[in-house]
Parts: sequence; C-alpha cells; structure tokens
Amino acid sequence: MTGTGPVLAIDVGGTKLAAGLVEPGGRLAAAAQTATPAELDAEGLWRTLDALASRVLAEAGLTPAGLSGVGCGCGGPMKWPAGIVSPLNIPAWRDFPLAARLAGRFGGLPVRLHNDAICMAAGEHWRGAGRGRSAMLGMVISTGVGGGLVLDGKLVSGASGNAGHVGHVVVDPAGPPCVCGGRGCLEAIARGPALAAWAQEQGWRPGRPGVTARDLAADAEQGHPIALAAMRRAGRAIGIAIASATHLCDLEVVAIGGGLAQAWSLLLRPLEQALREHLGLDYARGVRVVPAALGQSAGLIGAAALLLAGDRYWPGPG
Amino acid sequence: MTGTGPVLAIDVGGTKLAAGLVEPGGRLAAAAQTATPAELDAEGLWRTLDALASRVLAEAGLTPAGLSGVGCGCGGPMKWPAGIVSPLNIPAWRDFPLAARLAGRFGGLPVRLHNDAICMAAGEHWRGAGRGRSAMLGMVISTGVGGGLVLDGKLVSGASGNAGHVGHVVVDPAGPPCVCGGRGCLEAIARGPALAAWAQEQGWRPGRPGVTARDLAADAEQGHPIALAAMRRAGRAIGIAIASATHLCDLEVVAIGGGLAQAWSLLLRPLEQALREHLGLDYARGVRVVPAALGQSAGLIGAAALLLAGDRYWPGPG
Repeated sequence: MTGTGPVLAIDVGGTKLAAGLVEPGGRLAAAAQTATPAELDAEGLWRTLDALASRVLAEAGLTPAGLSGVGCGCGGPMKWPAGIVSPLNIPAWRDFPLAARLAGRFGGLPVRLHNDAICMAAGEHWRGAGRGRSAMLGMVISTGVGGGLVLDGKLVSGASGNAGHVGHVVVDPAGPPCVCGGRGCLEAIARGPALAAWAQEQGWRPGRPGVTARDLAADAEQGHPIALAAMRRAGRAIGIAIASATHLCDLEVVAIGGGLAQAWSLLLRPLEQALREHLGLDYARGVRVVPAALGQSAGLIGAAALLLAGDRYWPGPG
Repeated sequence: MTGTGPVLAIDVGGTKLAAGLVEPGGRLAAAAQTATPAELDAEGLWRTLDALASRVLAEAGLTPAGLSGVGCGCGGPMKWPAGIVSPLNIPAWRDFPLAARLAGRFGGLPVRLHNDAICMAAGEHWRGAGRGRSAMLGMVISTGVGGGLVLDGKLVSGASGNAGHVGHVVVDPAGPPCVCGGRGCLEAIARGPALAAWAQEQGWRPGRPGVTARDLAADAEQGHPIALAAMRRAGRAIGIAIASATHLCDLEVVAIGGGLAQAWSLLLRPLEQALREHLGLDYARGVRVVPAALGQSAGLIGAAALLLAGDRYWPGPG
C-alpha cells in the first residue's frame, strides 16, 4: 500500500450492493447501498455497482486519485485470486471479471477481491470480535452459510482460496441433501430457506406466501412451538459444526453474522447445549462463540482489510 | 539452524520409543527403537530414552557436538511450545519437562518438541505424500486418532498448539461417547479399541482375549462379515471427517498413517463412498486421500522437520 487515503470498499451480495470508504485505521467513514437489481444483464448490473461507488466518492468529495485501493467482497463461487465471479444468487454474472473491471474503472489502484464471507471474517478479526486473537472462525448464516478462517493470525486461503466454508461441515450424516451436492451439511439444515421449509413441513402455517427465516424467528419469539423447534434445530447444527471446527483448528473465538444471527437469543441455548455435548478436549472448551461485533459493516471493513492490514488477510506480498 | 550435521529425532509413543538421525535433506540415516517400558517411573523412563538416543549416536560415531539439533514428537496432551508432556498412554510422565530435559542432556543444541501426530503430518508434508502441496491433513489412526494440519504451506498451530485434532471432528452427533468427553467424534468410532469393542458387541468372537483392531482387520481380510462391517464403519467415519475437514480447510491431500492404515484395502471403498456422498463443492471433490508415504519413518522425519525446514513447521523465528 502506497497511499494514505481511504480504501473504497465494495460488497456484492444477492440481496444488496454496498459501497463505502474505509479509513486506514479501519473506520467506515461513508457507506451507501442499493438493492441488487434482479432483472439486469451483466453490464447493467456492473453499471449499477459503478454508479453506487461513484456516488460514494462524489458525496465524500473524492476522486479515485484520493484512494489508496479498492477492496471487494462478492458472493461465491469465484476464481480466486483472479476475481472472476459467478455468484450463486446473481445469475447475471457468470465468469464475470469483476476484479479486472474494478481495476479498469479505478486505473492504477490496487484491487483485491475475495469471497464475501471471508471479507466478513477478515473484518471481524481486524476490527471486531476476533481482534487480537490468533485463531478465529467467522460465520455468515443467512440464505447460505459461509465463513472465513483466521489461523495463527492470518487468513487461511486453502488450496484454491476456498478455506472457511463451514457451511459444508457435515453435522448429520443422515441429514438432508445439500445444494452443494453433499448431504447433512450445516447449510442444508441452518440456511434460512431450509429452516423455513423444515418448519412448514412440520406444520408451521405462517398464513402468507414467501415466508423467510425472519418470519420464523419472529414466530419463535412469540413462542410458536414449531418455530421454536426450528430455531433449536438450527442452533444445535451450528453448535455441532463449531465443535468440529474448534477441535480441528484449535479456535479461540467464533463470530457469527448474517441474518440468522439477529435471532441470537433463540439460537444461543441450543448452540451452547450442543457445544457442551460435543466439545470434549480441554483446549477446545474455552472457545467463545459471539455475535459479529461489526454488524452489517463487517463486510465492507473486511473488504478494505484485504488491503489495509498488510498481508494478514491476503497471501504473500502484492 | 547453524550446524550442518544431522538432527537427532526422537519419537515417544505409548507402545514404542524411537530415535534416529535425520540428515538436513530429510533422509533417515539411522534409527533404533525399543518397547516403551510400562513399569518404570518418570526418571526410569527418561533413562531408557536417553540410553536409546545415546546408542544411536554411538553407533553413528557421533557426539552431540556433531548434531545440529534435537527434534522430538510425543503423544499428547502437552504444554506447547514449552514441551511439558503428559502423554495419555504413558502414565509415568505427567507434566514431565521433556523439552527441557533434552535441552539439558544435549546442552547448547536447539530442541523442538511437538505432538507426535503433528510430527507425522510435518514429515509427510516435507518429504512424503504432501510434498509440494499447500494444504494437507495428516492423520494417524491407531489407539487414538490424531493429526496435523498444513495450510498455505505452513503447519497450523492453532490458539494453543492443538490444531489438527481431526479425531474429534463429529461424524455422528448421535454416536458413542468419546474419551475426550464429547460424543460421536471420529475417534470414538474409528480408534482401534473402539472398533474391536464394537465388533465384539455385534457378535465377533475372535476366540482369544486381548484382541486388537489388527486381529479384526485380519478377520475382515478372511471375509468375516462382522469384521468387514466394522471396517466399513471405520472407513465411512473417516470419510465423513475428511469431507468436513476438506470443505472447511480446502485441502488438496489427506495422508493417513498409523496401524489402521495398514488395512487400507478394507477402508478405501467405504471411505470413498462416504466422500462421494458428503463432498459436494467443486474445489473439494479433487482431494486426494492416500496412505502415508513414509510409513513408520514419518514421525522421526517430521520431528527433524521441526528444525530442518526453516519455520515451515514451527512458528516464527527461533
């Protein structure tokens, strides 16, 4: 990093696009977002994102020359580190060269792009719940279940940049099929749509179409027994996956974000019960499981951390 | 590392003690072993180990001054990196300061000590099945199930030096209690004694007392249906744990050693079947699961690798 200006941070999700300015110390100084347009083609979607980023810069009175780089989180899968993205929930982009387009638009600035859940984990480790810890798992539980793994103080890439996919830890070998092609993955049980579908199979009748895990959590808050059972099922599955990850990776802290984390009070008890049952080894019992501290800002702050935190969240020099 | 002489490598297990000389390039130039005495106290056991190491040196015509360091693997748990050991299967050593004793005996030489399964993984990554790979899990399946994790080309320590404990990944949340205090861990199902006990519960009658997983594997080779079912159960559990670890850590290769790996032909099919069922994501499907390439030498070569491979298998400078 040569500049001392802020980093333009971008977060591309299936529901919303967000852009912001992150100061070198990690403060999110400005941010804007817009719903991800569903009807546009690849170029239309790019223009929407470009306009959003341009607006954030204009409102701050900045030109690209005043930035020190561009950090971007995007839904997976992707070719990494090339930054060629095919987000599951954004059909318009298939093999879209997002990192190269950003580099073209912000000519001369360094651009780094990674999985959005990995950015959330980087943000939480850099400036959130994992600050100062050597071993952290960040989890994002919403439409899917993603994550990022920081071990020995550094973001783990894995062989192909895909380390951190905690959503596909097997929590019940006899469990339901997963969208990944496997069976009994955490995501197959705990992702929002799976939770809502399970509750409806059990007889939950929310009285309107298009219900989500948010409605389910609201009903659980009201004491609806099937909704409560669904949240218990999710909390328990999350706890089993955390037990496996903690034993394997010797984690100190697990930070959970995403929509479902907003139902924390409903998830916590079954999650802790599962940890009590499945966390055996002494070193593992001390793991702290906490809600993400940066909330909705974790993704943007983490996208900026790809550039601002030395090579802690990006491999090698570069 | 200052010297160019060999490293004295030591491997302390519940069954045997081994010592050897490992050349800077990784060749095991000499080795000796002896059964771990069960009846001795802490000092008696230390003298046995000291005598074994002294014999290896004497037979090679070396003095400690000709060595460049001492690397040691030991059964866990331990205080690490201090090297104060309390091996589960060696009751005589509880909080025994093994690293400090080795440093005293071989005054002036650098001494590094780690979990024996981690040494096996380091050895397999340095000179065996994981050579040149960025992401590898080494597993040791015998009386217990241990392991070591190499990610982004480096051994992962975890928060307390305990990363790699793949034996306590949950493979069946409704499974049997584990010696760790958890439930449904891989080790609770696939460790040798658990396998033999399960087979006996199912009606396996080997006709003599004190049977082991080795007898079970021999009977399975002969087509004994319960013995075959036990090996299928183990292979399947190993496969589920590998699927979880591969998704989470984006592994390229898993190298399996330890006594049970000698029954490879019996384990492979159920293991691969479990991988087909539970490995969903594209990046994970390419993982190679192979027997450890260094066989019984992996532990000694890996103990030496703690010193001989720069800081790849040991954190930071030092």
